[in-house]
Amino acid sequence: MTKSMLTLTAALLCMATLPAPADEQLAYKLTEELTVEVGPRLAGSPADAKAVAWATHKLQQLGYDKVWTEQFSTPFWQRGNARLEIISPFPQSLVLTALGGSVGTGAEGISASIVMFNSLEDLMLAKPEQVTGKIVFINKAMTKDKIGSQYGKVVGARSKGAVEAARLGAKAIIIRSVGTSNNRFAHTGKMSYEEGVPKIPAVAISVPDAMQLSKIISKAPEAKLRLNMENHTQDAVSHNVIAEITGSERPDEIVLISAHLDSWDQGTGALDDGAGVGLVMATGALIKKLGQPKRTIRVVLFGNEEGGLVGARAYAAKHAAELSKHVVATESDFGAGRIWQFDSKFGPQSLSFAKEIQQLLSGHGISLGNNKAFGGPDVSVIAALGVPVVSLEQDGTDYFDYHHTPNDTFDKIDPAALAQSQQAWMIMTTALANSTIDFRK
Amino acid sequence: MTKSMLTLTAALLCMATLPAPADEQLAYKLTEELTVEVGPRLAGSPADAKAVAWATHKLQQLGYDKVWTEQFSTPFWQRGNARLEIISPFPQSLVLTALGGSVGTGAEGISASIVMFNSLEDLMLAKPEQVTGKIVFINKAMTKDKIGSQYGKVVGARSKGAVEAARLGAKAIIIRSVGTSNNRFAHTGKMSYEEGVPKIPAVAISVPDAMQLSKIISKAPEAKLRLNMENHTQDAVSHNVIAEITGSERPDEIVLISAHLDSWDQGTGALDDGAGVGLVMATGALIKKLGQPKRTIRVVLFGNEEGGLVGARAYAAKHAAELSKHVVATESDFGAGRIWQFDSKFGPQSLSFAKEIQQLLSGHGISLGNNKAFGGPDVSVIAALGVPVVSLEQDGTDYFDYHHTPNDTFDKIDPAALAQSQQAWMIMTTALANSTIDFRK
Ligand SMILES: [Zn+2]
Ligand SMILES: [Zn+2]
Ligand SMILES: [Zn+2]
Ligand SMILES: [Zn+2]
Repeated sequence: MTKSMLTLTAALLCMATLPAPADEQLAYKLTEELTVEVGPRLAGSPADAKAVAWATHKLQQLGYDKVWTEQFSTPFWQRGNARLEIISPFPQSLVLTALGGSVGTGAEGISASIVMFNSLEDLMLAKPEQVTGKIVFINKAMTKDKIGSQYGKVVGARSKGAVEAARLGAKAIIIRSVGTSNNRFAHTGKMSYEEGVPKIPAVAISVPDAMQLSKIISKAPEAKLRLNMENHTQDAVSHNVIAEITGSERPDEIVLISAHLDSWDQGTGALDDGAGVGLVMATGALIKKLGQPKRTIRVVLFGNEEGGLVGARAYAAKHAAELSKHVVATESDFGAGRIWQFDSKFGPQSLSFAKEIQQLLSGHGISLGNNKAFGGPDVSVIAALGVPVVSLEQDGTDYFDYHHTPNDTFDKIDPAALAQSQQAWMIMTTALANSTIDFRK
Repeated sequence: MTKSMLTLTAALLCMATLPAPADEQLAYKLTEELTVEVGPRLAGSPADAKAVAWATHKLQQLGYDKVWTEQFSTPFWQRGNARLEIISPFPQSLVLTALGGSVGTGAEGISASIVMFNSLEDLMLAKPEQVTGKIVFINKAMTKDKIGSQYGKVVGARSKGAVEAARLGAKAIIIRSVGTSNNRFAHTGKMSYEEGVPKIPAVAISVPDAMQLSKIISKAPEAKLRLNMENHTQDAVSHNVIAEITGSERPDEIVLISAHLDSWDQGTGALDDGAGVGLVMATGALIKKLGQPKRTIRVVLFGNEEGGLVGARAYAAKHAAELSKHVVATESDFGAGRIWQFDSKFGPQSLSFAKEIQQLLSGHGISLGNNKAFGGPDVSVIAALGVPVVSLEQDGTDYFDYHHTPNDTFDKIDPAALAQSQQAWMIMTTALANSTIDFRK
């Protein structure tokens, strides 16, 4: 048994006895409070400011040594009314949602015939005469697995579809929701425009509506649709919320644990990312109850992740001089499922320590993964600048059933799974904060 | 083996060889066509007229001997925009739907504090001072089973809640959706007013929203809500669509098989009642292919079931003189699940024939039920006037997950289950139509 193992074991013996029943459900209770008392919290909105105030107050109540906010400027994109109708030959409405950042149609709307592609790649092979003046429909299905491996293969249609369709002269783009549920919810999410390419409206329709539209097109290739949508963007501010448990021996060395405080506007952001917020807020607070760690634990609740890592970039810019003191960073942002794997991105000399952490986690059903940890979307910004990262991988089999839809609500969280995650977060964070290892090496 | 059993067995031997693969899926294909080409078809709407035209044309194509429509007058209730918001202390929107027939709020909306009851019965025990000037919330949950036995216990809040709340001075009523799914869909359905009691707006919120609202109320009993809703009612006409396979020996004796053609406006009415429409349209057509039955098989696609059996009452009035010649009637209106039981409501001398029919169905996993068959909602009108009825009972375990929500779409139908139902409908209808028994006796 190494010295670090001994330290960890001592800490865990304390933990095994200490947490009261209330403490075991702390992450769950915090997630509930955020989703009930604040609800949806789109970056830049009044609810976002309310979430920042809630988190600040709550972190103080939880006994953190320091709590502060860091303001940044951000666009505030707002969804307006939207309606998508088959005009002919089979008049009916489809369930849709604007993609985040999309322009509206203007009051007169857009009426056009439709052209369907099976993927973004197929669209990119099309000739302008197939697409010009039409509404493009990308009908690519997503299948589910534990790690959400299909997401990356499907999400391109959401993020880049409008640009590629507009290049070919399309008037608007509709995508099949990037999601795995057959429930009639449309998935939103960030899309982007490109300088010099016309900005066209971009929407997603639910999976059943995509199936319906493809049937309509196969019966009536000349089908005509009308899209009406009003969205608005204005300048706003948001905040990263930061709190620390000050290290007893190495206060300048930062173990950064994080989640994002903002959510899409359709659901209450329980899985994305209320559960992550609850987990990291609980982790620091419960560790402090067990005694001050050697290194500083910094909890960062990033603002505007959904709008494109806006808060994470602001953090990286503001803390550039301090990044070398960030010994490790991580984020919880993959729902509320059980943790099943521990991954690291450490220097070669630290790999044995990754194994030690995993052994502490093994009693919770967590195995050792690889040394290619992603760390999380916000943390990826500082990971790219050389900060070592770790990931507690969650089972995301059902995550994309709910993600970015109105159905992302608190009732979808299994308290037992979240309690398991909270245990894992405490064990891992304690180990990282009580270690003296330089994970860059 | 009785003589009637011999006749049935002969018919079944034919059936076992005849249906081509396309025929086995005929009900499924018809349901698909109706839900794709017509979609939602609220009684009195242009889509309802389109459904009538589709059904008439399709019944002719399917080879029915006679096809006609019977017009009736009906109110045409139309859903407008609706929005329900917590104003304070936790501002957020809830997912709602107007209950069918509800008045709107006027442009200014209704703002009021809220009072929650666990059931309609609890509301009815309340004192006016608890309710006056408030918005009532009835938060009664529904559990699921094969026969939907909870529906009757919960639906009273939907149909009578507005009257009881208004009697006590409430400004509006919100009910927890009469449904069994935790997906964020609000269930619509008919509500009623009473002469002399003020008409107040009535809405349902989804199950997760009901859970959320009850949490909000427990944290903030003084919570205030605002409801804005625009609904409209006008006079319209609709039609029952009727088709016959003329009986070869007893053409004046009618075996009535039915479903309802109208649907709510939120989904495409695939389970309620597109599948039923597909089943009974297919049944008559496939039986004719096997040879003319002795008695006339009359297919009735009732109009405006959802608005309160409007088409069924019109049918009963118009055919009053002919009801004694309706030897038996039945309806398919409980989704698209497998059939598991056969029930009758026959005279005592006919019970042995009910047993014979069930034995023919036993190979399809269908057991004998009771002699208290309901027959179906539309058919209940003529059952009350003495017409014998039968019911092929479907497994409705998941029916109230989808029923009356936007999620009632074609993708929810299992083609194998519908093929099993089609077989059962053909066997039962053939037996009834080739029998000479008076089921009243
Ligand atoms: Zn996220
Ligand atoms: Zn997200
Ligand atoms: Zn029905
Ligand atoms: Zn119904």
